[in-house]
Amino acid sequence: MKKYRVGILGATGTVGQRFIQLLEGHPQFEVTALAASDRSAGKPYAEACAWKLNGAIPESVREIVVVPIEPPLDCDIVFSSLPSSVARETEEAFARAGYPVISNSSSYRMDEDVPLLIAEVNPDHVDLIPEQQKKRGFGKGFIVTNPNCAVVSFAPPLAAIHRKFGIESAVVTTMQAISGAGYPGVASMDIVDNVVPYIAGEEPKVETEAQKILGTLTNGAIEKADFAVSAQCFRVNVLDGHTCAVRVNLAEKATLEDIVAAMKEFPSLGLHSSPARFIDVLDEPSRPQPRLDRDSGNGMTITVGRFFPDTVFDYRFVALSHNTVRGAAGSAILNAELLIDRRMI
Amino acid sequence: MKKYRVGILGATGTVGQRFIQLLEGHPQFEVTALAASDRSAGKPYAEACAWKLNGAIPESVREIVVVPIEPPLDCDIVFSSLPSSVARETEEAFARAGYPVISNSSSYRMDEDVPLLIAEVNPDHVDLIPEQQKKRGFGKGFIVTNPNCAVVSFAPPLAAIHRKFGIESAVVTTMQAISGAGYPGVASMDIVDNVVPYIAGEEPKVETEAQKILGTLTNGAIEKADFAVSAQCFRVNVLDGHTCAVRVNLAEKATLEDIVAAMKEFPSLGLHSSPARFIDVLDEPSRPQPRLDRDSGNGMTITVGRFFPDTVFDYRFVALSHNTVRGAAGSAILNAELLIDRRMI
Amino acid sequence: MKKYRVGILGATGTVGQRFIQLLEGHPQFEVTALAASDRSAGKPYAEACAWKLNGAIPESVREIVVVPIEPPLDCDIVFSSLPSSVARETEEAFARAGYPVISNSSSYRMDEDVPLLIAEVNPDHVDLIPEQQKKRGFGKGFIVTNPNCAVVSFAPPLAAIHRKFGIESAVVTTMQAISGAGYPGVASMDIVDNVVPYIAGEEPKVETEAQKILGTLTNGAIEKADFAVSAQCFRVNVLDGHTCAVRVNLAEKATLEDIVAAMKEFPSLGLHSSPARFIDVLDEPSRPQPRLDRDSGNGMTITVGRFFPDTVFDYRFVALSHNTVRGAAGSAILNAELLIDRRMI
Amino acid sequence: MKKYRVGILGATGTVGQRFIQLLEGHPQFEVTALAASDRSAGKPYAEACAWKLNGAIPESVREIVVVPIEPPLDCDIVFSSLPSSVARETEEAFARAGYPVISNSSSYRMDEDVPLLIAEVNPDHVDLIPEQQKKRGFGKGFIVTNPNCAVVSFAPPLAAIHRKFGIESAVVTTMQAISGAGYPGVASMDIVDNVVPYIAGEEPKVETEAQKILGTLTNGAIEKADFAVSAQCFRVNVLDGHTCAVRVNLAEKATLEDIVAAMKEFPSLGLHSSPARFIDVLDEPSRPQPRLDRDSGNGMTITVGRFFPDTVFDYRFVALSHNTVRGAAGSAILNAELLIDRRMI
Repeated sequence: MKKYRVGILGATGTVGQRFIQLLEGHPQFEVTALAASDRSAGKPYAEACAWKLNGAIPESVREIVVVPIEPPLDCDIVFSSLPSSVARETEEAFARAGYPVISNSSSYRMDEDVPLLIAEVNPDHVDLIPEQQKKRGFGKGFIVTNPNCAVVSFAPPLAAIHRKFGIESAVVTTMQAISGAGYPGVASMDIVDNVVPYIAGEEPKVETEAQKILGTLTNGAIEKADFAVSAQCFRVNVLDGHTCAVRVNLAEKATLEDIVAAMKEFPSLGLHSSPARFIDVLDEPSRPQPRLDRDSGNGMTITVGRFFPDTVFDYRFVALSHNTVRGAAGSAILNAELLIDRRMI
Repeated sequence: MKKYRVGILGATGTVGQRFIQLLEGHPQFEVTALAASDRSAGKPYAEACAWKLNGAIPESVREIVVVPIEPPLDCDIVFSSLPSSVARETEEAFARAGYPVISNSSSYRMDEDVPLLIAEVNPDHVDLIPEQQKKRGFGKGFIVTNPNCAVVSFAPPLAAIHRKFGIESAVVTTMQAISGAGYPGVASMDIVDNVVPYIAGEEPKVETEAQKILGTLTNGAIEKADFAVSAQCFRVNVLDGHTCAVRVNLAEKATLEDIVAAMKEFPSLGLHSSPARFIDVLDEPSRPQPRLDRDSGNGMTITVGRFFPDTVFDYRFVALSHNTVRGAAGSAILNAELLIDRRMI
Repeated sequence: MKKYRVGILGATGTVGQRFIQLLEGHPQFEVTALAASDRSAGKPYAEACAWKLNGAIPESVREIVVVPIEPPLDCDIVFSSLPSSVARETEEAFARAGYPVISNSSSYRMDEDVPLLIAEVNPDHVDLIPEQQKKRGFGKGFIVTNPNCAVVSFAPPLAAIHRKFGIESAVVTTMQAISGAGYPGVASMDIVDNVVPYIAGEEPKVETEAQKILGTLTNGAIEKADFAVSAQCFRVNVLDGHTCAVRVNLAEKATLEDIVAAMKEFPSLGLHSSPARFIDVLDEPSRPQPRLDRDSGNGMTITVGRFFPDTVFDYRFVALSHNTVRGAAGSAILNAELLIDRRMI
Repeated sequence: MKKYRVGILGATGTVGQRFIQLLEGHPQFEVTALAASDRSAGKPYAEACAWKLNGAIPESVREIVVVPIEPPLDCDIVFSSLPSSVARETEEAFARAGYPVISNSSSYRMDEDVPLLIAEVNPDHVDLIPEQQKKRGFGKGFIVTNPNCAVVSFAPPLAAIHRKFGIESAVVTTMQAISGAGYPGVASMDIVDNVVPYIAGEEPKVETEAQKILGTLTNGAIEKADFAVSAQCFRVNVLDGHTCAVRVNLAEKATLEDIVAAMKEFPSLGLHSSPARFIDVLDEPSRPQPRLDRDSGNGMTITVGRFFPDTVFDYRFVALSHNTVRGAAGSAILNAELLIDRRMI
């Protein structure tokens, strides 16, 4: 099978490194281009990158010379982990130059004609792409996005509930890992023996993305799901894995067993990066925990637990996912697999 | 001025140590008796106790020989930090033997005739004491309690709101420090690079105590405040300081400024352990933080911040207090000062 | 190929869990017996064990009913991770009952007739076994041990030097991970924002084991290598991975390049659990680091770096290994593979 | 008593903040000038500074407008915590302009005519000042320095030994706190669940400063103490407090009791910032620990423990001090008190 040649924008950053790690040995993709800031351009990747993941830099990319972040790039597909400050302009340039852009940045997530995809939840939203290409005059290029790393933790269990019983409102309190801020990111003096009750720009993203993901595509447009989300976002002293405390009011009555069953029934996809279980319900009273559960399904499973009736809402529970795998690079790769499966690439 | 002689039940534990530290040099109290489990009894305190607080064991208590936890005790007042498993029986024995028992345990908190005191919030609840003495046949002894350490973080700001505008419901997500579990308490392998979504028995306490504290004493009985609290409780990798994410619905309309003003106006008491400000409103977007704010007012101030209108509730904010000072030993000592001031001791 | 049936003594502990994780899918071994304390015996493993490793309990052992720690056991080989307090008597009982006992405990490490093995360093010490069997009247059973988890970090690089240039003395300062103390082990209040300069019983072990490992087997007895080791051992806030600061004086002159070359030349074995590189020399000035390097070679590689001439000794360097893999279960499994290869099993 | 007016260079940094905290309420000094980089200049201190210490910014400095780092400054004495890259030129400019400069920077520490002071250890080195003023044409200004923060932990116990028995060589392995790198300093992703075996430029400083401090001032010049120090320096996951593992060879024989007695006898000074005990010998086997002991003597005491005969050296022990108090701002303030006492200011 011929492999797709992929390029990574922002290849030296925390998420860029995770892309490289997850693409190592991938049956459908081969990394052929690494683009990063001018400071890195011109150097072999192994020299340009301060690798911060467990394990060594894969041999297959060590000698690839980093190039500037602009088209053309020696690849068929572009994965972007650019900071939002530069993503908007650059990703458009790549799409306009004919590349499928699978982006982890926040820039285009809420644009009406751009799919905001969790592959298992709203795969049909890929049908927005022809609309987008026409509207923006993109030719065969396009942009799809994956959600904010905290949203990925709780949107799937909300989707499981929403499909069956509808949702009236949800309240989410997040405890987010330091890797979510990149490198150098969070100063150690800010997080050792501490909790920080503020992540710049995070709460609005967490309050708006789920409704689009759970929305319905009709006549070439997404009608957002009609419920309010309240978000309070905290940074905690954890390397990887965002934990979310969730309360939810349902549109229709359902028992606790109904809710849990809806989680367990939510199918995974049969794609290469799909975990055996998309949502894994843990029964132990002290789970999920980031250190123990973030790598479930190679970091692609959403683990949930502590389902209880709530005193103010209908139900409450805890949801967790790996923020740089399922919450970033892993979801983008799964989206690329979906796009190939749907013959969009 | 003659000092009251005080005894500490559970003197070698985490909260017992904090009692000793806070009572060092106190103008009204002098530690004269230290009671602990049979394993410690008979040894000088410095030998019996694995001291885990910053700084050395105060000289004044090093040589006090630890005695068993039973009356009589060589003191006028008893502070109890007993585990709830033994507190109920033992504290009653001391009250019955004529000692004022100021307890940090959960055993009696929800008993109808026992004050559950935050000195600044419901000082008039001390008037339950004669009722209690009569009903239980206690003579001059009695029991008063202070709340769960997480409740102390958010009940004061709720009280500020409740007094002026009433409360319909509140949703609290706690991020609690490891010292709250005592010593050895939380295993390091459970909390390093981790969050634990479960604290045994905690959520029910957090959901029920605030309504009693904010209740009204009428005709010798407390009518609880009529609102629901939802609690999800997490253990995080912080030594001291419980952080609470709070959403609240008001009974009457109020602006954000009204809410904040209510916090600032809430008076401190003029007692020895009273902080200059009872509730301190921080304006910086990233505060309060446990490492930076837990020691505010010598650990007796409640710090709050991040007041915003909420998308599901009326308002949201973050509240923090020192769990072994304001949340335990410090509150108990302040309650003793209040009882002296009110001539109950 | 027929698999050897293996039993694990102390199966519910930290090292026992690591044995199970590493044996999952092993081509030569199949776990058939799990033995643990009376409290666990009689329960299915999944119920008896508080699993603390990343990932779920392997399906293959979940339903195995835990049995008491005594022969007979339904297996061909016994891996022991018993606490040293009970290991001496119990391991002897198993050896006497005919089982090869591959032990991670310290009880027999320094016994003259018991091999203390690092498979790559002193594989010929397995030839002590017939001697041991004869002397102790063991029949076909026997005991082999692997070293203390800190010793495994620095003994291999010392061995590389010793073989070529001899060693006069070595000074080692260890920074050891919390998992080395098992579970619950180190209390979080002891290690968060802290370093503990004391690990009970550790410094003597670290000062004596290397000389036996680097000793010479002649006429059925090991002559220990003749150099002194000084050890200061610290517990640091790291989950896995022991870091050692080492200074060394050589018997013969050698250049820094000679020393480094000796490390790189040290061969790995071709056994299943052998890493591609036994000792991996890292050039970056800030390596090795436990979080980044402990999993090198699936946790079986010793990583070293920061080789410099020293102002007091000849040379200094830093060495690191994964304390529950290379420092415990992984080394024991590799030793079993070696014993099979040498036809001792 | 008239207070000296003091200015702080680098006032917004980690050590600058510690200067301000320690000078609050000081009987001899009053902060009147705060100098920082151009980015901060012109703003009130409370606005310019990202305060990272426990507790609030002292009221007395909140409104002081930060000025550029150049003379003249509205003060009598200058405390400098400038980064070494700019310290050399700037501190000379201040000395030349007539200010006593008490510096925490490394720039001048090893200059022959500049005292490198630990007030209790080598107070007579202040007699270098007239020499320095003459040689450099400084008028009444001058520069004195305090040592590297790790050196301050182990130089005092070495001094205690050196005075009585002489030292032949010493080997030091440091475990240093993150606050030593300033703010933002160490990235959290580098230190959570980790140890970093490298601190840029640190090992040479640690290997050379002690010999000057323990040197003898004769005929206007310091003759350095004649022994070698070996240093391996590590960053560990601790907020404040540098821990040092020390081995030492003595010039003359001494018993362990002699060594410990020498520590206990080492006198403190009677100055305002002097701790009750300069060197405090702890007997518990697991002390000193940074979290428990760094604040001993308000952060000005050196705590030591774990004295043992060593297998390679004569003796070994562990030493600890607070790196931003005794290791930086506190030592500088004590040096200023000494200079006043010696009538150099």
